[in-house]
Amino acid sequence: MSKPSVPQGTRDLSPEVVRKRQYLLTTLRTIFEECGFQPIETPSMENLSTLMGKYGEEGDRLIFKVLNNGLNDPNKHAKTRAALENVLQGKNDSNLAERALRYDLTIPFARYVVMHQNEINFPFRRYQMQPVWRADRPQKGRYREFWQCDCDIVGSNSLINEAELLYIYREAFFQLNIPKIIVRVNSRKVLSGIAQYCNAANQLVDITTAIDKLDKIGVEGVIKELNERGLNSEQVNDIIRLINITELDVLENEFASKQINEGVAGIKELKDSLAYHSALRKTEWNNSEIKIDFTLARGLSYYTGIIVEVNCADERIQMGSIGGGGRYDDLTGLFGLKNLSGVGVSFGIDRIYDVMEQLELFPAAIAVGTKAMIINTGNENEAYAMQVLQELRRHHIAAEIYPDVVKFDKQMKYIFNRAIPFAVIIEDEERTQQNIRVKDFAAGTQVKMSVAEFIQKIV
Amino acid sequence: MSKPSVPQGTRDLSPEVVRKRQYLLTTLRTIFEECGFQPIETPSMENLSTLMGKYGEEGDRLIFKVLNNGLNDPNKHAKTRAALENVLQGKNDSNLAERALRYDLTIPFARYVVMHQNEINFPFRRYQMQPVWRADRPQKGRYREFWQCDCDIVGSNSLINEAELLYIYREAFFQLNIPKIIVRVNSRKVLSGIAQYCNAANQLVDITTAIDKLDKIGVEGVIKELNERGLNSEQVNDIIRLINITELDVLENEFASKQINEGVAGIKELKDSLAYHSALRKTEWNNSEIKIDFTLARGLSYYTGIIVEVNCADERIQMGSIGGGGRYDDLTGLFGLKNLSGVGVSFGIDRIYDVMEQLELFPAAIAVGTKAMIINTGNENEAYAMQVLQELRRHHIAAEIYPDVVKFDKQMKYIFNRAIPFAVIIEDEERTQQNIRVKDFAAGTQVKMSVAEFIQKIV
Repeated sequence: MSKPSVPQGTRDLSPEVVRKRQYLLTTLRTIFEECGFQPIETPSMENLSTLMGKYGEEGDRLIFKVLNNGLNDPNKHAKTRAALENVLQGKNDSNLAERALRYDLTIPFARYVVMHQNEINFPFRRYQMQPVWRADRPQKGRYREFWQCDCDIVGSNSLINEAELLYIYREAFFQLNIPKIIVRVNSRKVLSGIAQYCNAANQLVDITTAIDKLDKIGVEGVIKELNERGLNSEQVNDIIRLINITELDVLENEFASKQINEGVAGIKELKDSLAYHSALRKTEWNNSEIKIDFTLARGLSYYTGIIVEVNCADERIQMGSIGGGGRYDDLTGLFGLKNLSGVGVSFGIDRIYDVMEQLELFPAAIAVGTKAMIINTGNENEAYAMQVLQELRRHHIAAEIYPDVVKFDKQMKYIFNRAIPFAVIIEDEERTQQNIRVKDFAAGTQVKMSVAEFIQKIV
Repeated sequence: MSKPSVPQGTRDLSPEVVRKRQYLLTTLRTIFEECGFQPIETPSMENLSTLMGKYGEEGDRLIFKVLNNGLNDPNKHAKTRAALENVLQGKNDSNLAERALRYDLTIPFARYVVMHQNEINFPFRRYQMQPVWRADRPQKGRYREFWQCDCDIVGSNSLINEAELLYIYREAFFQLNIPKIIVRVNSRKVLSGIAQYCNAANQLVDITTAIDKLDKIGVEGVIKELNERGLNSEQVNDIIRLINITELDVLENEFASKQINEGVAGIKELKDSLAYHSALRKTEWNNSEIKIDFTLARGLSYYTGIIVEVNCADERIQMGSIGGGGRYDDLTGLFGLKNLSGVGVSFGIDRIYDVMEQLELFPAAIAVGTKAMIINTGNENEAYAMQVLQELRRHHIAAEIYPDVVKFDKQMKYIFNRAIPFAVIIEDEERTQQNIRVKDFAAGTQVKMSVAEFIQKIV
């Protein structure tokens, strides 16, 4: 028998990890619910046709396809062989695989909205927390199965929505206690304005793609790439100068001087969103700041308005963005429902987990399940111990009895290894006196008390 | 563009359904944690070799396999074509699909225990709530993606564990408020004793398989099947007589009279488990009962000791078991770790959901997210409304503002349709007086009050 293993890029989650993730997801869920977002879930498998062509050529390649069942039916053999030849040529063929695993939560959400449009009340605020799968090459911090957590508002153009999503980011990272959160904000309309400014409106995608790499390749790299993409040095100079402006008014004046209406509109949207956000802001948020950043581009092509990205600037953290999003004007158009504007943000659950783990931000209390374990010394003591166990659980104290009557030291070592804070010792003396002896590992004490006293001590 | 859809046998979950499922899972999770069970999660994809051969021939056929990626690499074409030919013959070949979707939680748990045996403290109590996938023919109440929820204790032979799992069942169905719960209990050792009693020890599997169909085919059907499986009429008479005994002592005497030690041992295990269970029992459990039932067989071959199955006997419910489990002595042996006994039970989440839905047992409160929505009348009123919104959220009241300034009636209708209990109306008068007008849909009232008064009213 070969040693069992899990597929490359996947992992088992131990109790400690599950509990920490649960804490993270519950914190977010509570905030989403307080802000009126509603949960939905979509199937892990989608029709392959729903997903293909939505994530670019690279994305298509990374989608996990599910082999059709019943292929051993002889009537299907010819079709299946032909389908395989298509797949070997890099094409898709539903005769071999007609289903695929969810690649993100955005496309399934767009499909959901279109399919359920008659039962949805718009504007529709939804959140969704589910795993996604990508056949990426596994590496540190990158898995083939990982969780996404999105919240979106569709069916409203109001910039209050943008403000609400900024609220959610700041409230979430405040609750999670993550330091030095920078929420960078820009607008696709501003980037479009910049393209118009240097007479390169038709090269907006080239410009965005190049700027998007700024963090990775630096200014020199962006300049080189812009040149390679056919922009002349005057245009490149303008782009670099404009994206490095840090004041809304300054860039607004630049746009106004050249009558670039889209750019002016983008600046106004940013101003209004931030004004709304200020009205909702909580004074205690001292761990995060909003930063206008015209160098922020975000790669995804479906954004049309404000875009946002979140980083943790703590010097101990070397990591890309831990969240991002923006406004898109026609996502559901992919599935036939036109003119439905939406705005959404995403939380990078696995990266946020890693940041919190590295900075030791998970509360110690969540790692422990069982609070008290009763040592089992058998016979009448066991019967009395069962009563005590029942009494503890009746007070909602997570408690266990060691199920087997084995050596005292073995049981004590087990309790210690599991980091259970209290061992409850019941031997003849305790049973006859109808009390218990409690070993408190943290305090290093061993004290006799009544069950009621113990309950009072730890509830 | 074709109309979007989801794969057959899968479904989108609406906010109401997600919230109800969340309530169900959280109720179970809380009980598991109180009883000292620890959560684990395993990957959705397992190596195909981990799953194949564990669920019988029928099970193998229903496993969803995941197509390998990178098949367009010309170097792999020959191997892939050869692999397809194997698959067309009903075999598996890792050159076409080396991964598969989780089929249940039991085999992944066994694999987990073996892989992590050096970091686990035994006895190990774990619970796991995750989706599984089966390529079954979809029908009412049967999906291709559905959730399982298991709790198991491995590494202990103590019958306290059996008692603990009975406790969990009864406590869970008590908390969920499901009426007329029957927890049927039997032992594989008793069934083995019955086989020995009629000199058919080597036909135990035939006997169990036939008895297992009792609910479906009736006594006559079982008799017929036992005959077909080669048991003579005297043997069949004995079997039918013995499994219809309802008293432990009566069957014990039958076994003792023929010196069938395994049968006697099985009866003793049942008695001891029930005695332990009585010690833990809560007096308020009046919705459930434990019933000894020697006709209970359970199909799965890995059980070796006590077996259990849960039904809802409410006359409005037409449904099979909503939970089941038992003791297995060698599950991890499949992956090379011998002699590790375990016992576990499973909750049929989707069926329990359906029962609760049919009997209207979900608390009304959980269906509603947002408690109050503020009507947006624009301009200065909007700015004041944002302050009110901030104040409500500060008191953890789930609240929203209608994001767009549209007609009053349209906003009111939206609030009504979403079943949000309170509409908060802010027009010029309320703003200048720094108060709010609250429409209470349930009471049919509209009352002016301060924000503080409103908060006090609904917190």
